[in-house]
Amino acid sequence: MNNPVQFNPDEWVVDSNDRTALSIRIKERLFYEKSPYQTVEVFDTCDRGKMLTIDRMVMCTEADEASYHEMLVHVPMLTDSSIKDVLVIGAGDGGTIRELVRYENIETITMVEIDEVVIRASKQFLPTISSAFNHPKLKLLIDDGIKFVEEAADNSYDLVIIDSSDPVGPSEGLFTKSFYQDVYRCLRPGGLVTVQSESPSFNPKAFVELNQCLKQVFGKDKVYCYLVFIPMYPSGMWSLTYCSKQGLHPLSFNRDRAIQFSQKHNLSYYNADVHQSAFALPTYIKKMIGEE
Amino acid sequence: MNNPVQFNPDEWVVDSNDRTALSIRIKERLFYEKSPYQTVEVFDTCDRGKMLTIDRMVMCTEADEASYHEMLVHVPMLTDSSIKDVLVIGAGDGGTIRELVRYENIETITMVEIDEVVIRASKQFLPTISSAFNHPKLKLLIDDGIKFVEEAADNSYDLVIIDSSDPVGPSEGLFTKSFYQDVYRCLRPGGLVTVQSESPSFNPKAFVELNQCLKQVFGKDKVYCYLVFIPMYPSGMWSLTYCSKQGLHPLSFNRDRAIQFSQKHNLSYYNADVHQSAFALPTYIKKMIGEE
Repeated sequence: MNNPVQFNPDEWVVDSNDRTALSIRIKERLFYEKSPYQTVEVFDTCDRGKMLTIDRMVMCTEADEASYHEMLVHVPMLTDSSIKDVLVIGAGDGGTIRELVRYENIETITMVEIDEVVIRASKQFLPTISSAFNHPKLKLLIDDGIKFVEEAADNSYDLVIIDSSDPVGPSEGLFTKSFYQDVYRCLRPGGLVTVQSESPSFNPKAFVELNQCLKQVFGKDKVYCYLVFIPMYPSGMWSLTYCSKQGLHPLSFNRDRAIQFSQKHNLSYYNADVHQSAFALPTYIKKMIGEE
Repeated sequence: MNNPVQFNPDEWVVDSNDRTALSIRIKERLFYEKSPYQTVEVFDTCDRGKMLTIDRMVMCTEADEASYHEMLVHVPMLTDSSIKDVLVIGAGDGGTIRELVRYENIETITMVEIDEVVIRASKQFLPTISSAFNHPKLKLLIDDGIKFVEEAADNSYDLVIIDSSDPVGPSEGLFTKSFYQDVYRCLRPGGLVTVQSESPSFNPKAFVELNQCLKQVFGKDKVYCYLVFIPMYPSGMWSLTYCSKQGLHPLSFNRDRAIQFSQKHNLSYYNADVHQSAFALPTYIKKMIGEE
Protein backbone atom coordinates (compact mmCIF):
# COMPACT_ATOMS: atom_id res chain seq x y z
CA MET A 1 0.00 0.00 0.00
CA ASN A 2 1.03 3.63 0.37
CA ASN A 3 3.35 5.30 2.85
CA PRO A 4 2.09 6.03 6.35
CA VAL A 5 -0.17 9.04 6.73
CA GLN A 6 1.67 11.17 9.26
CA PHE A 7 0.07 13.74 11.48
CA ASN A 8 2.90 15.99 12.63
CA PRO A 9 2.00 17.34 16.09
CA ASP A 10 3.04 20.84 15.05
CA GLU A 11 0.24 20.72 12.50
CA TRP A 12 -2.41 18.31 13.74
CA VAL A 13 -4.13 17.34 16.98
CA VAL A 14 -5.33 13.73 17.03
CA ASP A 15 -8.20 12.59 19.28
CA SER A 16 -8.47 8.83 19.03
CA ASN A 17 -9.35 5.51 20.55
CA ASP A 18 -7.90 2.26 19.26
CA ARG A 19 -10.41 2.02 16.38
CA THR A 20 -11.10 5.52 15.06
CA ALA A 21 -9.33 8.86 15.19
CA LEU A 22 -10.25 12.45 14.48
CA SER A 23 -7.41 14.74 13.41
CA ILE A 24 -7.82 18.50 13.43
CA ARG A 25 -5.35 20.78 11.70
CA ILE A 26 -3.81 23.54 13.79
CA LYS A 27 -1.80 26.66 13.18
CA GLU A 28 -0.06 26.67 16.55
CA ARG A 29 -0.27 25.68 20.19
CA LEU A 30 -1.10 28.63 22.43
CA PHE A 31 -1.12 27.02 25.87
CA TYR A 32 0.32 23.92 27.51
CA GLU A 33 0.28 23.04 31.20
CA LYS A 34 0.36 19.81 33.15
CA SER A 35 -1.96 20.28 36.08
CA PRO A 36 -2.07 17.82 39.00
CA TYR A 37 -4.94 16.13 37.14
CA GLN A 38 -4.31 16.31 33.41
CA THR A 39 -2.60 18.02 30.50
CA VAL A 40 -4.44 21.13 29.39
CA GLU A 41 -3.73 22.65 25.97
CA VAL A 42 -5.18 25.35 23.75
CA PHE A 43 -4.56 25.38 20.00
CA ASP A 44 -5.38 27.75 17.20
CA THR A 45 -6.93 25.55 14.52
CA CYS A 46 -7.01 26.22 10.79
CA ASP A 47 -10.76 26.68 10.46
CA ARG A 48 -12.43 25.83 13.80
CA GLY A 49 -11.12 28.77 15.81
CA LYS A 50 -9.36 28.07 19.08
CA MET A 51 -9.61 24.63 20.62
CA LEU A 52 -9.25 23.37 24.20
CA THR A 53 -8.02 19.82 24.77
CA ILE A 54 -7.50 17.79 27.94
CA ASP A 55 -5.09 14.88 27.60
CA ARG A 56 -5.48 15.41 23.84
CA MET A 57 -9.24 14.85 23.94
CA VAL A 58 -11.15 17.71 22.29
CA MET A 59 -13.17 19.60 24.90
CA CYS A 60 -14.39 22.38 22.64
CA THR A 61 -13.65 24.44 19.56
CA GLU A 62 -14.91 27.97 19.07
CA ALA A 63 -16.66 26.81 15.89
CA ASP A 64 -18.94 24.25 17.44
CA GLU A 65 -18.89 24.68 21.21
CA ALA A 66 -22.25 26.44 21.05
CA SER A 67 -23.93 23.23 19.86
CA TYR A 68 -22.88 21.44 23.02
CA HIS A 69 -23.38 24.23 25.55
CA GLU A 70 -26.71 25.42 24.19
CA MET A 71 -28.19 21.92 24.12
CA LEU A 72 -26.88 21.09 27.61
CA VAL A 73 -28.33 24.26 29.15
CA HIS A 74 -31.39 25.39 27.18
CA VAL A 75 -33.15 22.03 27.02
CA PRO A 76 -33.67 21.90 30.82
CA MET A 77 -33.90 25.68 31.30
CA LEU A 78 -36.64 26.08 28.68
CA THR A 79 -38.47 22.99 29.92
CA ASP A 80 -38.82 24.38 33.45
CA SER A 81 -39.16 28.15 33.73
CA SER A 82 -39.07 28.12 37.55
CA ILE A 83 -35.41 27.12 37.98
CA LYS A 84 -33.65 29.35 40.51
CA ASP A 85 -30.62 27.53 41.92
CA VAL A 86 -28.24 25.71 39.61
CA LEU A 87 -25.26 23.50 40.41
CA VAL A 88 -22.69 22.91 37.66
CA ILE A 89 -20.02 20.21 37.96
CA GLY A 90 -17.01 20.56 35.68
CA ALA A 91 -17.55 23.03 32.82
CA GLY A 92 -14.15 24.66 33.24
CA ASP A 93 -14.17 26.34 29.84
CA GLY A 94 -17.08 28.51 30.98
CA GLY A 95 -19.50 27.90 28.09
CA THR A 96 -22.18 26.40 30.31
CA ILE A 97 -22.08 29.40 32.63
CA ARG A 98 -22.27 31.79 29.67
CA GLU A 99 -25.53 30.14 28.58
CA LEU A 100 -26.98 30.00 32.12
CA VAL A 101 -26.52 33.71 32.85
CA ARG A 102 -28.93 34.53 30.02
CA TYR A 103 -31.81 33.61 32.37
CA GLU A 104 -33.29 36.22 34.69
CA ASN A 105 -35.11 33.57 36.73
CA ILE A 106 -31.81 32.03 37.86
CA GLU A 107 -30.76 33.37 41.25
CA THR A 108 -27.58 31.40 42.01
CA ILE A 109 -25.12 29.34 40.00
CA THR A 110 -22.67 27.21 41.97
CA MET A 111 -19.91 25.84 39.77
CA VAL A 112 -17.45 23.22 41.02
CA GLU A 113 -14.45 22.63 38.76
CA ILE A 114 -11.59 20.50 40.01
CA ASP A 115 -8.87 22.01 37.82
CA GLU A 116 -8.17 25.74 37.91
CA VAL A 117 -5.80 25.35 34.95
CA VAL A 118 -8.74 24.71 32.62
CA ILE A 119 -10.42 27.91 33.78
CA ARG A 120 -7.22 29.91 33.49
CA ALA A 121 -6.50 28.63 29.97
CA SER A 122 -10.05 29.40 28.86
CA LYS A 123 -10.05 32.88 30.41
CA GLN A 124 -6.82 33.71 28.62
CA PHE A 125 -7.44 32.18 25.19
CA LEU A 126 -11.19 31.54 24.80
CA PRO A 127 -12.76 34.87 25.75
CA THR A 128 -16.04 34.24 23.93
CA ILE A 129 -16.53 31.01 25.89
CA SER A 130 -15.26 32.14 29.30
CA SER A 131 -17.11 35.45 29.26
CA ALA A 132 -19.27 34.92 32.37
CA PHE A 133 -16.78 33.96 35.08
CA ASN A 134 -17.21 37.33 36.77
CA HIS A 135 -21.00 37.23 36.78
CA PRO A 136 -22.48 38.26 40.16
CA LYS A 137 -24.77 35.21 40.33
CA LEU A 138 -21.82 32.82 40.04
CA LYS A 139 -20.13 31.17 42.99
CA LEU A 140 -17.05 29.41 41.59
CA LEU A 141 -15.35 26.71 43.64
CA ILE A 142 -12.12 24.98 42.66
CA ASP A 143 -12.90 21.66 44.23
CA ASP A 144 -13.76 18.02 43.68
CA GLY A 145 -17.33 17.81 42.39
CA ILE A 146 -17.77 14.30 43.79
CA LYS A 147 -16.86 15.41 47.31
CA PHE A 148 -19.00 18.53 46.87
CA VAL A 149 -22.20 16.65 46.10
CA GLU A 150 -21.45 14.13 48.88
CA GLU A 151 -21.47 16.99 51.34
CA ALA A 152 -24.22 19.08 49.74
CA ALA A 153 -27.45 19.56 51.69
CA ASP A 154 -30.59 17.71 50.60
CA ASN A 155 -33.05 19.54 48.32
CA SER A 156 -30.69 22.38 47.44
CA TYR A 157 -30.82 22.74 43.65
CA ASP A 158 -33.43 23.01 40.92
CA LEU A 159 -30.99 21.97 38.18
CA VAL A 160 -27.69 20.11 38.26
CA ILE A 161 -25.56 20.08 35.11
CA ILE A 162 -22.77 17.53 34.78
CA ASP A 163 -20.43 18.99 32.19
CA SER A 164 -17.55 16.56 32.46
CA SER A 165 -14.75 15.32 30.26
CA ASP A 166 -14.60 11.65 29.33
CA PRO A 167 -14.59 8.94 32.01
CA VAL A 168 -10.84 8.70 32.44
CA GLY A 169 -8.74 10.57 34.99
CA PRO A 170 -10.50 13.00 37.32
CA SER A 171 -13.89 12.61 35.59
CA GLU A 172 -14.13 8.86 36.16
CA GLY A 173 -16.05 9.26 39.42
CA LEU A 174 -18.67 11.36 37.62
CA PHE A 175 -19.87 8.20 35.86
CA THR A 176 -20.80 6.21 39.01
CA LYS A 177 -24.04 5.35 40.75
CA SER A 178 -22.93 6.75 44.13
CA PHE A 179 -22.24 10.14 42.51
CA TYR A 180 -25.70 10.26 40.93
CA GLN A 181 -27.34 9.15 44.17
CA ASP A 182 -25.83 12.25 45.76
CA VAL A 183 -26.93 14.40 42.82
CA TYR A 184 -30.45 13.02 43.21
CA ARG A 185 -30.47 13.72 46.92
CA CYS A 186 -29.38 17.33 46.62
CA LEU A 187 -32.01 18.05 43.93
CA ARG A 188 -35.29 19.68 44.98
CA PRO A 189 -38.44 17.60 44.36
CA GLY A 190 -39.15 18.99 40.88
CA GLY A 191 -35.46 19.15 40.00
CA LEU A 192 -33.76 18.39 36.70
CA VAL A 193 -30.34 17.12 35.66
CA THR A 194 -28.53 17.25 32.32
CA VAL A 195 -25.41 15.22 31.74
CA GLN A 196 -22.70 14.92 29.09
CA SER A 197 -23.29 11.25 28.32
CA GLU A 198 -20.66 10.32 25.70
CA SER A 199 -20.95 9.13 22.10
CA PRO A 200 -22.99 6.03 21.24
CA SER A 201 -20.48 5.44 18.45
CA PHE A 202 -17.09 6.43 19.89
CA ASN A 203 -17.70 5.40 23.52
CA PRO A 204 -20.56 2.89 23.31
CA LYS A 205 -19.71 1.17 26.60
CA ALA A 206 -19.60 4.39 28.63
CA PHE A 207 -22.77 5.61 26.89
CA VAL A 208 -24.76 2.48 27.72
CA GLU A 209 -23.44 2.13 31.27
CA LEU A 210 -24.18 5.74 32.16
CA ASN A 211 -27.70 5.39 30.77
CA GLN A 212 -28.26 2.30 32.92
CA CYS A 213 -26.82 4.06 35.95
CA LEU A 214 -29.08 7.10 35.51
CA LYS A 215 -32.15 4.89 35.08
CA GLN A 216 -31.30 3.03 38.30
CA VAL A 217 -31.08 6.30 40.21
CA PHE A 218 -33.90 8.35 38.63
CA GLY A 219 -36.21 5.61 37.39
CA LYS A 220 -36.56 4.28 33.88
CA ASP A 221 -39.32 6.70 32.84
CA LYS A 222 -37.48 9.80 34.03
CA VAL A 223 -34.33 9.54 31.89
CA TYR A 224 -34.25 10.84 28.30
CA CYS A 225 -31.25 10.61 26.01
CA TYR A 226 -30.86 13.20 23.27
CA LEU A 227 -28.36 13.68 20.46
CA VAL A 228 -26.33 16.62 19.20
CA PHE A 229 -24.18 16.96 16.09
CA ILE A 230 -20.68 17.99 17.21
CA PRO A 231 -18.38 17.58 14.20
CA MET A 232 -15.22 18.26 16.21
CA TYR A 233 -15.89 15.42 18.65
CA PRO A 234 -14.91 11.99 17.31
CA SER A 235 -17.82 10.41 15.39
CA GLY A 236 -19.68 13.74 15.37
CA MET A 237 -22.59 12.14 17.23
CA TRP A 238 -22.73 13.07 20.89
CA SER A 239 -25.35 12.31 23.51
CA LEU A 240 -26.65 14.36 26.40
CA THR A 241 -29.11 13.01 28.94
CA TYR A 242 -31.98 14.78 30.67
CA CYS A 243 -33.27 13.37 33.98
CA SER A 244 -36.06 14.62 36.19
CA LYS A 245 -36.84 13.81 39.81
CA GLN A 246 -40.62 13.95 39.44
CA GLY A 247 -41.15 13.18 35.77
CA LEU A 248 -41.30 16.56 34.06
CA HIS A 249 -41.13 15.58 30.38
CA PRO A 250 -38.45 17.35 28.31
CA LEU A 251 -40.91 17.88 25.46
CA SER A 252 -43.41 19.65 27.72
CA PHE A 253 -41.52 22.90 27.08
CA ASN A 254 -43.29 26.08 26.01
CA ARG A 255 -42.55 26.36 22.28
CA ASP A 256 -43.32 30.07 22.05
CA ARG A 257 -40.94 30.83 24.89
CA ALA A 258 -38.24 28.67 23.28
CA ILE A 259 -38.68 30.45 19.94
CA GLN A 260 -38.55 33.90 21.53
CA PHE A 261 -35.57 33.02 23.73
CA SER A 262 -33.48 31.52 20.95
CA GLN A 263 -34.16 34.46 18.65
CA LYS A 264 -33.53 37.08 21.33
CA HIS A 265 -30.17 35.53 22.21
CA ASN A 266 -29.25 34.75 18.61
CA LEU A 267 -28.48 31.15 19.50
CA SER A 268 -26.38 29.20 17.06
CA TYR A 269 -27.69 25.61 17.34
CA TYR A 270 -30.70 25.44 19.68
CA ASN A 271 -34.16 26.26 18.42
CA ALA A 272 -37.59 24.95 19.39
CA ASP A 273 -37.66 22.35 16.60
CA VAL A 274 -34.20 21.11 17.49
CA HIS A 275 -35.18 20.85 21.18
CA GLN A 276 -37.93 18.47 20.18
CA SER A 277 -36.13 16.57 17.45
CA ALA A 278 -32.98 15.86 19.47
CA PHE A 279 -34.98 13.35 21.53
CA ALA A 280 -35.99 11.32 18.44
CA LEU A 281 -33.36 8.59 18.54
CA PRO A 282 -32.41 6.32 15.64
CA THR A 283 -33.78 2.84 16.27
CA TYR A 284 -30.37 1.22 16.80
CA ILE A 285 -29.57 3.69 19.56
CA LYS A 286 -32.93 3.04 21.23
CA LYS A 287 -32.01 -0.64 21.18
CA MET A 288 -28.59 0.05 22.75
CA ILE A 289 -30.32 1.57 25.79
CA GLY A 290 -33.23 -0.86 25.97
CA GLU A 291 -35.88 1.54 24.71
CA GLU A 292 -36.99 -0.51 21.69
CA MET B 1 5.67 18.56 21.22
CA ASN B 2 5.37 14.80 20.75
CA ASN B 3 6.41 12.60 17.86
CA PRO B 4 4.20 12.43 14.77
CA VAL B 5 1.06 10.34 15.06
CA GLN B 6 1.47 7.81 12.27
CA PHE B 7 -1.34 5.98 10.57
CA ASN B 8 0.25 3.02 8.86
CA PRO B 9 -1.80 2.18 5.75
CA ASP B 10 -1.72 -1.51 6.63
CA GLU B 11 -3.66 -0.62 9.77
CA TRP B 12 -5.61 2.57 9.10
CA VAL B 13 -7.63 4.18 6.32
CA VAL B 14 -7.59 7.98 6.42
CA ASP B 15 -10.39 10.07 4.86
CA SER B 16 -9.37 13.71 5.03
CA ASN B 17 -9.48 17.18 3.62
CA ASP B 18 -6.80 19.75 4.41
CA ARG B 19 -8.35 20.67 7.77
CA THR B 20 -9.78 17.53 9.36
CA ALA B 21 -9.26 13.80 8.96
CA LEU B 22 -11.09 10.68 10.00
CA SER B 23 -8.97 7.55 10.47
CA ILE B 24 -10.56 4.11 10.69
CA ARG B 25 -8.62 1.11 11.88
CA ILE B 26 -8.60 -1.91 9.58
CA LYS B 27 -7.60 -5.54 9.81
CA GLU B 28 -6.81 -5.97 6.12
CA ARG B 29 -7.51 -4.84 2.61
CA LEU B 30 -9.75 -7.27 0.74
CA PHE B 31 -10.05 -5.61 -2.66
CA TYR B 32 -8.13 -3.07 -4.72
CA GLU B 33 -8.73 -2.07 -8.32
CA LYS B 34 -8.10 1.02 -10.36
CA SER B 35 -11.08 1.46 -12.65
CA PRO B 36 -11.04 3.94 -15.55
CA TYR B 37 -12.71 6.38 -13.14
CA GLN B 38 -11.32 5.87 -9.65
CA THR B 39 -9.61 3.58 -7.16
CA VAL B 40 -12.04 1.17 -5.53
CA GLU B 41 -11.06 -0.62 -2.31
CA VAL B 42 -12.75 -2.81 0.28
CA PHE B 43 -11.32 -3.17 3.78
CA ASP B 44 -12.18 -5.26 6.78
CA THR B 45 -12.27 -2.78 9.68
CA CYS B 46 -11.69 -3.53 13.34
CA ASP B 47 -15.20 -2.77 14.57
CA ARG B 48 -17.23 -1.32 11.68
CA GLY B 49 -17.46 -4.43 9.54
CA LYS B 50 -16.37 -4.21 5.92
CA MET B 51 -15.86 -0.81 4.34
CA LEU B 52 -15.95 0.40 0.75
CA THR B 53 -13.82 3.39 -0.24
CA ILE B 54 -13.43 5.27 -3.52
CA ASP B 55 -10.20 7.24 -3.86
CA ARG B 56 -9.86 6.71 -0.10
CA MET B 57 -13.15 8.46 0.65
CA VAL B 58 -15.43 6.30 2.81
CA MET B 59 -18.49 5.25 0.82
CA CYS B 60 -19.99 2.95 3.41
CA THR B 61 -19.25 0.63 6.31
CA GLU B 62 -21.42 -2.32 7.22
CA ALA B 63 -21.91 -0.78 10.68
CA ASP B 64 -23.55 2.45 9.62
CA GLU B 65 -24.53 2.16 5.95
CA ALA B 66 -28.14 1.57 6.97
CA SER B 67 -28.37 5.09 8.41
CA TYR B 68 -27.57 6.58 5.02
CA HIS B 69 -29.51 4.20 2.79
CA GLU B 70 -32.64 4.08 4.94
CA MET B 71 -32.85 7.86 5.20
CA LEU B 72 -32.20 8.37 1.48
CA VAL B 73 -34.92 5.90 0.46
CA HIS B 74 -37.62 5.73 3.13
CA VAL B 75 -38.12 9.47 3.56
CA PRO B 76 -39.46 9.90 -0.02
CA MET B 77 -40.99 6.42 -0.28
CA LEU B 78 -43.02 6.81 2.92
CA THR B 79 -43.99 10.38 2.03
CA ASP B 80 -45.60 9.31 -1.26
CA SER B 81 -47.18 5.86 -1.31
CA SER B 82 -47.98 6.01 -5.03
CA ILE B 83 -44.40 5.81 -6.35
CA LYS B 84 -44.10 3.23 -9.16
CA ASP B 85 -41.06 4.03 -11.30
CA VAL B 86 -37.75 4.90 -9.68
CA LEU B 87 -34.49 6.07 -11.23
CA VAL B 88 -31.30 5.70 -9.19
CA ILE B 89 -28.05 7.40 -10.24
CA GLY B 90 -24.87 6.01 -8.70
CA ALA B 91 -25.49 3.75 -5.70
CA GLY B 92 -22.99 1.12 -6.86
CA ASP B 93 -22.75 -0.60 -3.45
CA GLY B 94 -26.39 -1.66 -3.80
CA GLY B 95 -27.74 -0.43 -0.46
CA THR B 96 -30.24 1.95 -2.04
CA ILE B 97 -31.65 -0.84 -4.21
CA ARG B 98 -31.90 -3.15 -1.19
CA GLU B 99 -34.10 -0.58 0.58
CA LEU B 100 -36.21 0.14 -2.53
CA VAL B 101 -37.16 -3.48 -3.21
CA ARG B 102 -38.97 -3.60 0.15
CA TYR B 103 -41.88 -1.71 -1.50
CA GLU B 104 -44.60 -3.60 -3.31
CA ASN B 105 -45.92 -0.45 -4.95
CA ILE B 106 -42.66 0.01 -6.90
CA GLU B 107 -42.90 -1.48 -10.39
CA THR B 108 -39.54 -0.60 -11.95
CA ILE B 109 -36.15 0.48 -10.66
CA THR B 110 -33.68 1.79 -13.22
CA MET B 111 -30.19 2.11 -11.79
CA VAL B 112 -27.39 3.85 -13.67
CA GLU B 113 -23.91 3.38 -12.21
CA ILE B 114 -20.88 4.50 -14.18
CA ASP B 115 -18.36 2.11 -12.63
CA GLU B 116 -18.94 -1.64 -12.75
CA VAL B 117 -15.95 -2.15 -10.44
CA VAL B 118 -17.90 -0.70 -7.51
CA ILE B 119 -20.74 -3.14 -8.12
CA ARG B 120 -18.38 -6.08 -8.53
CA ALA B 121 -16.49 -5.24 -5.31
CA SER B 122 -19.72 -4.85 -3.39
CA LYS B 123 -21.21 -8.09 -4.75
CA GLN B 124 -18.09 -9.98 -3.74
CA PHE B 125 -17.36 -8.47 -0.32
CA LEU B 126 -20.50 -6.68 0.92
CA PRO B 127 -23.24 -9.28 0.48
CA THR B 128 -25.62 -7.70 3.02
CA ILE B 129 -25.49 -4.41 1.09
CA SER B 130 -25.49 -5.76 -2.47
CA SER B 131 -28.25 -8.30 -1.86
CA ALA B 132 -30.78 -6.97 -4.39
CA PHE B 133 -28.82 -6.76 -7.65
CA ASN B 134 -30.71 -9.75 -9.04
CA HIS B 135 -34.15 -8.43 -8.18
CA PRO B 136 -36.64 -8.80 -11.08
CA LYS B 137 -37.80 -5.16 -10.82
CA LEU B 138 -34.24 -3.86 -11.32
CA LYS B 139 -32.86 -2.73 -14.66
CA LEU B 140 -29.15 -2.10 -14.09
CA LEU B 141 -27.19 -0.01 -16.58
CA ILE B 142 -23.45 0.55 -16.46
CA ASP B 143 -23.46 4.00 -17.93
CA ASP B 144 -22.94 7.70 -17.33
CA GLY B 145 -25.87 9.00 -15.25
CA ILE B 146 -25.46 12.50 -16.65
CA LYS B 147 -25.81 11.31 -20.24
CA PHE B 148 -28.68 9.02 -19.19
CA VAL B 149 -30.85 11.80 -17.75
CA GLU B 150 -30.00 14.05 -20.73
CA GLU B 151 -31.51 11.44 -23.00
CA ALA B 152 -34.33 10.28 -20.72
CA ALA B 153 -37.90 10.95 -21.83
CA ASP B 154 -39.92 13.67 -20.10
CA ASN B 155 -42.24 12.64 -17.24
CA SER B 156 -40.78 9.16 -16.84
CA TYR B 157 -40.12 8.69 -13.12
CA ASP B 158 -41.95 9.17 -9.83
CA LEU B 159 -38.75 9.26 -7.79
CA VAL B 160 -35.13 9.98 -8.72
CA ILE B 161 -32.43 9.20 -6.16
CA ILE B 162 -28.97 10.70 -6.60
CA ASP B 163 -26.69 8.48 -4.55
CA SER B 164 -23.33 9.85 -5.60
CA SER B 165 -19.86 10.04 -4.18
CA ASP B 166 -18.31 13.42 -3.44
CA PRO B 167 -18.06 16.11 -6.15
CA VAL B 168 -14.65 15.13 -7.45
CA GLY B 169 -13.92 12.78 -10.33
CA PRO B 170 -16.86 11.15 -12.11
CA SER B 171 -19.44 12.53 -9.66
CA GLU B 172 -18.59 16.18 -10.29
CA GLY B 173 -21.24 16.55 -12.97
CA LEU B 174 -23.90 15.34 -10.54
CA PHE B 175 -23.59 18.64 -8.69
CA THR B 176 -24.52 20.94 -11.60
CA LYS B 177 -27.62 22.88 -12.57
CA SER B 178 -27.87 21.32 -16.05
CA PHE B 179 -27.94 17.83 -14.51
CA TYR B 180 -30.79 18.76 -12.16
CA GLN B 181 -32.69 20.48 -14.97
CA ASP B 182 -32.67 17.12 -16.74
CA VAL B 183 -33.69 15.32 -13.55
CA TYR B 184 -36.56 17.78 -13.15
CA ARG B 185 -37.67 17.26 -16.73
CA CYS B 186 -37.76 13.47 -16.54
CA LEU B 187 -39.79 13.54 -13.30
CA ARG B 188 -43.55 13.09 -13.47
CA PRO B 189 -45.64 16.04 -12.23
CA GLY B 190 -45.90 14.80 -8.63
CA GLY B 191 -42.36 13.43 -8.60
CA LEU B 192 -39.78 13.49 -5.84
CA VAL B 193 -35.99 13.57 -5.68
CA THR B 194 -33.59 12.73 -2.86
CA VAL B 195 -29.94 13.63 -3.10
CA GLN B 196 -26.75 12.94 -1.18
CA SER B 197 -25.91 16.57 -0.44
CA GLU B 198 -22.59 16.51 1.45
CA SER B 199 -21.63 17.58 4.97
CA PRO B 200 -22.31 21.13 6.16
CA SER B 201 -19.16 20.77 8.26
CA PHE B 202 -16.71 18.81 6.12
CA ASN B 203 -17.78 20.12 2.68
CA PRO B 204 -19.57 23.41 3.47
CA LYS B 205 -19.00 24.89 0.01
CA ALA B 206 -20.40 21.88 -1.88
CA PHE B 207 -23.31 21.67 0.61
CA VAL B 208 -24.31 25.31 0.15
CA GLU B 209 -23.81 25.36 -3.62
CA LEU B 210 -25.87 22.21 -4.17
CA ASN B 211 -28.67 23.62 -2.00
CA GLN B 212 -28.69 26.81 -4.08
CA CYS B 213 -28.64 24.79 -7.31
CA LEU B 214 -31.59 22.63 -6.22
CA LYS B 215 -33.60 25.69 -5.18
CA GLN B 216 -32.98 27.30 -8.57
CA VAL B 217 -34.27 24.21 -10.35
CA PHE B 218 -37.15 23.11 -8.08
CA GLY B 219 -38.09 26.40 -6.44
CA LYS B 220 -37.18 27.62 -2.98
CA ASP B 221 -40.24 26.17 -1.24
CA LYS B 222 -39.82 22.69 -2.72
CA VAL B 223 -36.35 21.86 -1.38
CA TYR B 224 -35.85 20.46 2.13
CA CYS B 225 -32.48 19.62 3.63
CA TYR B 226 -32.31 16.94 6.33
CA LEU B 227 -29.51 15.58 8.48
CA VAL B 228 -28.30 12.10 9.35
CA PHE B 229 -25.70 10.97 11.89
CA ILE B 230 -23.09 8.91 10.01
CA PRO B 231 -20.13 8.44 12.38
CA MET B 232 -17.93 6.86 9.70
CA TYR B 233 -18.18 9.85 7.38
CA PRO B 234 -15.88 12.74 8.31
CA SER B 235 -17.59 15.10 10.80
CA GLY B 236 -20.37 12.53 11.39
CA MET B 237 -22.96 15.07 10.20
CA TRP B 238 -24.25 14.37 6.72
CA SER B 239 -27.03 16.05 4.76
CA LEU B 240 -29.54 14.63 2.34
CA THR B 241 -31.97 16.78 0.40
CA TYR B 242 -35.58 16.10 -0.55
CA CYS B 243 -37.09 17.98 -3.51
CA SER B 244 -40.56 17.77 -4.95
CA LYS B 245 -41.87 18.92 -8.30
CA GLN B 246 -45.30 20.00 -7.07
CA GLY B 247 -44.67 20.75 -3.42
CA LEU B 248 -45.52 17.52 -1.57
CA HIS B 249 -44.18 18.26 1.92
CA PRO B 250 -41.79 15.63 3.36
CA LEU B 251 -43.55 15.84 6.74
CA SER B 252 -46.94 15.02 5.20
CA PHE B 253 -46.09 11.32 5.51
CA ASN B 254 -48.49 8.83 7.09
CA ARG B 255 -47.03 8.18 10.56
CA ASP B 256 -48.88 4.92 11.10
CA ARG B 257 -47.62 3.54 7.81
CA ALA B 258 -44.06 4.65 8.65
CA ILE B 259 -44.25 2.98 12.07
CA GLN B 260 -45.60 -0.26 10.63
CA PHE B 261 -43.11 -0.30 7.76
CA SER B 262 -40.05 0.35 9.91
CA GLN B 263 -41.08 -2.32 12.41
CA LYS B 264 -41.98 -4.89 9.76
CA HIS B 265 -38.60 -4.45 8.05
CA ASN B 266 -36.66 -4.16 11.31
CA LEU B 267 -35.00 -0.97 10.13
CA SER B 268 -31.87 0.13 11.93
CA TYR B 269 -32.00 3.95 11.84
CA TYR B 270 -35.25 5.16 10.25
CA ASN B 271 -38.39 5.45 12.33
CA ALA B 272 -41.35 7.82 12.13
CA ASP B 273 -39.93 10.19 14.76
CA VAL B 274 -36.55 10.30 13.04
CA HIS B 275 -38.24 11.01 9.67
CA GLN B 276 -39.78 14.11 11.19
CA SER B 277 -36.87 15.22 13.34
CA ALA B 278 -34.22 14.96 10.61
CA PHE B 279 -35.72 18.06 8.99
CA ALA B 280 -35.28 20.18 12.15
CA LEU B 281 -32.02 21.92 11.33
CA PRO B 282 -29.74 23.65 13.83
CA THR B 283 -30.02 27.41 13.40
CA TYR B 284 -26.50 27.88 12.04
CA ILE B 285 -27.20 25.39 9.25
CA LYS B 286 -30.47 27.14 8.38
CA LYS B 287 -28.44 30.33 8.08
CA MET B 288 -25.89 28.64 5.78
CA ILE B 289 -28.68 27.88 3.29
CA GLY B 290 -30.60 31.13 3.70
CA GLU B 291 -33.52 29.64 5.64
CA GLU B 292 -33.18 31.81 8.77
